[in-house]
Amino acid sequence: MTAPNIAAAIEAMSHLEVDTKPASVKTKSRDFFWYSPVLKDRLDGLVADFVVSPRNEAEVIEVLKICYEHDVPVTTRGAGTGNYGQAIPLAGGCVLHLNLMNAVKEIHPGRTIVEPGCLLKDIDAATKEHSGQEIRLFSSTWATATIGGFIAGGSGGVGGVRWGGLRDVGNIIRLRVVTMEAEPRVLEITGEELHRVSHAYGTNGIITEIEIPLAPAYDWVELFLSFKDFTEALTYCYDLVGCDGMLIKLATVFEAPIAKDYFQRVAPYVEADDVVVALMVAPHAMSGFQTFSARYDGADVIYRSDDHDWARHPGHVFEYAWNHTTLRALKVDPSITYLQVGYGTDDPISLVNKMREMFSPEVLQHVEVTRQGGRVGMGGLSLVKFSDEARLDEIVALHEAEGAMIFNPHRYTLEEGGRQSTDERQLEFKREADPKGLLNPGKMIAWDDPDWGYDQMYAYPGLRKAAE
Amino acid sequence: MTAPNIAAAIEAMSHLEVDTKPASVKTKSRDFFWYSPVLKDRLDGLVADFVVSPRNEAEVIEVLKICYEHDVPVTTRGAGTGNYGQAIPLAGGCVLHLNLMNAVKEIHPGRTIVEPGCLLKDIDAATKEHSGQEIRLFSSTWATATIGGFIAGGSGGVGGVRWGGLRDVGNIIRLRVVTMEAEPRVLEITGEELHRVSHAYGTNGIITEIEIPLAPAYDWVELFLSFKDFTEALTYCYDLVGCDGMLIKLATVFEAPIAKDYFQRVAPYVEADDVVVALMVAPHAMSGFQTFSARYDGADVIYRSDDHDWARHPGHVFEYAWNHTTLRALKVDPSITYLQVGYGTDDPISLVNKMREMFSPEVLQHVEVTRQGGRVGMGGLSLVKFSDEARLDEIVALHEAEGAMIFNPHRYTLEEGGRQSTDERQLEFKREADPKGLLNPGKMIAWDDPDWGYDQMYAYPGLRKAAE
Repeated sequence: MTAPNIAAAIEAMSHLEVDTKPASVKTKSRDFFWYSPVLKDRLDGLVADFVVSPRNEAEVIEVLKICYEHDVPVTTRGAGTGNYGQAIPLAGGCVLHLNLMNAVKEIHPGRTIVEPGCLLKDIDAATKEHSGQEIRLFSSTWATATIGGFIAGGSGGVGGVRWGGLRDVGNIIRLRVVTMEAEPRVLEITGEELHRVSHAYGTNGIITEIEIPLAPAYDWVELFLSFKDFTEALTYCYDLVGCDGMLIKLATVFEAPIAKDYFQRVAPYVEADDVVVALMVAPHAMSGFQTFSARYDGADVIYRSDDHDWARHPGHVFEYAWNHTTLRALKVDPSITYLQVGYGTDDPISLVNKMREMFSPEVLQHVEVTRQGGRVGMGGLSLVKFSDEARLDEIVALHEAEGAMIFNPHRYTLEEGGRQSTDERQLEFKREADPKGLLNPGKMIAWDDPDWGYDQMYAYPGLRKAAE
Repeated sequence: MTAPNIAAAIEAMSHLEVDTKPASVKTKSRDFFWYSPVLKDRLDGLVADFVVSPRNEAEVIEVLKICYEHDVPVTTRGAGTGNYGQAIPLAGGCVLHLNLMNAVKEIHPGRTIVEPGCLLKDIDAATKEHSGQEIRLFSSTWATATIGGFIAGGSGGVGGVRWGGLRDVGNIIRLRVVTMEAEPRVLEITGEELHRVSHAYGTNGIITEIEIPLAPAYDWVELFLSFKDFTEALTYCYDLVGCDGMLIKLATVFEAPIAKDYFQRVAPYVEADDVVVALMVAPHAMSGFQTFSARYDGADVIYRSDDHDWARHPGHVFEYAWNHTTLRALKVDPSITYLQVGYGTDDPISLVNKMREMFSPEVLQHVEVTRQGGRVGMGGLSLVKFSDEARLDEIVALHEAEGAMIFNPHRYTLEEGGRQSTDERQLEFKREADPKGLLNPGKMIAWDDPDWGYDQMYAYPGLRKAAE
């Protein structure tokens, strides 16, 4: 890359919402990468030179045009709740903050059209109010995260038990994307091409409009159940998700003593050896839920949101699931980190159990049940007691050796956090949409070093720390 | 059974809506058993002595009390669209016609409470109008069939591709049932006990109120596709249903030349060797549908309800599927009958293909893709060119020998049309709710002959033909 002309870029954006105050630029240069001690070591202290918050697509185009002209790197952020360092500006430059582009533009039966900076919870509020609808999938950071960040930086979450993941056909309808060129183009992206820019960390285009499907909104009954036996809890959830007539939105299993040790408001109601299950069940499915649960001797409902006597409301149960589990553990024990594990659909219960036998309590199982390719599958956001990087790498390798796929959250590149191989569609589109390589530099190995062998953690040579 | 006192019963019901006119009693004593040449041979000409149409539950109780007192058999009917002779009064007596109990009583988010005589299409009209909702599951006789008949005599249908079958937990919430005793009781039945009376042909209680879940109503796009290769069409549908992010309501495969020979309004648009697929896709899933379909070279959309130039509207595509396929074939070739086949979820495509190799064209494959226990499965309503009963039995046996389960639609008993074994829950409840055995006599073998060995077709000894 040519050296950026930061001053000229800022000057050219004087009519836009630009922030150059060091404290707030620093804040807006961070995301939740610190869930990982490895990323914390690598990414702490990285800051942009300035932040710009466009109010609409025309201003996005202006920003990209100016930054292109002055060779300024552009890292896009929503709320910065990602955990892979997606929104960290590795090479300084501009943070493109989409917080002002937060309109819900259209709502129709089964779909909505929104701007990327809209909070997930605000979309739900608008669509529920409008026509009793809600988004299918959301991250556990629903209350604070943006839809653009979720789509560009996430893979799935709550609702995955019914709808699968964001990559599955039908879960994103259309993305409108601006390219990083001398004359930025605006592209409408649908179909197979969605994979070019969804989950690409903003490395190959800026999403300015999103069309996603909606599901009916219900007053979900949120539940905690306790079990004494881990396998029974897993089996219970697996079977429940296999009940095609039962409408549920979340099924999560926490190995003991996760709930007792890390879930402050749940702890008074469980013992250290309690395996806890979190569920969201449609109100009209509660009768079926009772029927189903009575088949499992060990299932004990300790909390349901529509009928409980807990002294302190625990909040949404989904704020204990997905990566909120890690967050809660981290707050109690800063040495906790996590791994993202794919247990697949063939025999996930056995594979989870094998990992538990190999690693508990160094690694505690936190399992999310989801639909995967039409079958019931499991994924883990396992809690890991961190000792050092070598041991963490060893744990990763041992998982992979047993057939448990790792999406490594201790890496900041798309490839290392994914399948450790070049995504040709994303790379090809970056060549077309970001010829200077200015979008979120350092996040796509294939762009920087096509021959990278993945034998060690990639270290982007352009890392630019604040103090440097 | 003690000999019934028909005259006394009719006398006691003089204040009710009673029909004794021979022509209309004959009509109301029939259902669609004639899809089966075997049942036609056995059941043709059977008639009740009279028909009574209660206006409400209190009148149902009155009818049952009177019939109990006078030992009059009671066979309950909705619209009489069943194909297993469910509504045929084998021993004469009273036909309890629920056509006047057709109110939609309550509609809530995700559920409705209705009377049993309500037409499926009328529930949909009311719930759609009220709050954009519709029933999850319905038979292809949606336009004419009642919800009570569907639940008491059916097992599933359109929507099964998403929600599984009626027996699956969550697809029926509650049934209100009146018993056949000296003092009839009214029972609220939920949970595991639902299996006592759902799909029991009214042999052990009369359903007077039904609570079922609802799904969001969409303006489903109805499609026909053609393929040149049968296996590709099966695979296409299997994979499509496995797309968790794609909201569809029907996926049906018709072996060639079913569409050309039997689907009059489709025939001009297909060749004799065209395998045809019928689909219902949510409008907001059409973009995903295009993406998915483009992956299959052989998939050719020949009709979509929202955009077509067919000279004659083909009607609802679901009126080509499920048992409407058989109906359409029968109208063209009266020698056609059918079998109901379960291909399961393990390797249904191979099993369907094996049956096709063994029997085509004597048996033509008509396959419905459904969810079964959390997995994608297939069932068949295969078209059979009927020669004689011995060959039909042989075809059944050959299916079973290969692991394809047969739900034999050429039998009028619950057991023979099901799993050929006593359903202890249904039997036990009949002992309790119908001590005189007056409800739909002859339909539950276990009641009549507990030691029946299923080595031949059961022949109810109480059969009473009109002329006798």
